[in-house]
Amino acid sequence: MKVAVKVMPRREVLDTQGRAVGEKLNRAGLTLESCRVGKYIELEIQESERDKALDKAKEMAEYVLYNPLIETFEMEVVEP
Amino acid sequence: MKVAVKVMPRREVLDTQGRAVGEKLNRAGLTLESCRVGKYIELEIQESERDKALDKAKEMAEYVLYNPLIETFEMEVVEP
Repeated sequence: MKVAVKVMPRREVLDTQGRAVGEKLNRAGLTLESCRVGKYIELEIQESERDKALDKAKEMAEYVLYNPLIETFEMEVVEP
Repeated sequence: MKVAVKVMPRREVLDTQGRAVGEKLNRAGLTLESCRVGKYIELEIQESERDKALDKAKEMAEYVLYNPLIETFEMEVVEP
């Protein structure tokens, strides 16, 4: 099963990468209100049960994929 | 409207970041088949029409968000 983990900077944290991209776009005339840049990690897990796959993905996310101080994460099954 | 642009490394390109994360997880006993790491960019665009917002996001993606040689991108409306 393929599970995706989306890791985004917390609202209250300054997202320097997102700000840089947003400013670049605005200067180029491609106006936008705001921009946030995060990570998208696709995990191919050998597990056919949805709940078990999500549990494993959560364990992986908490182990190494995100930093709880400055980021939050969401998961989604992208391929059964 | 909030549009997300998901940028992933092309299949045929070596995803060094994904491989490093995958190896780290496997060594820690969190077994997985494969891992790919991409970017997730949320753009808040002042545009209420869905199609126009997606057109603008596409223009932004092609201008600065992805490298067509090594990456592909997908878009989705995440907030109306």
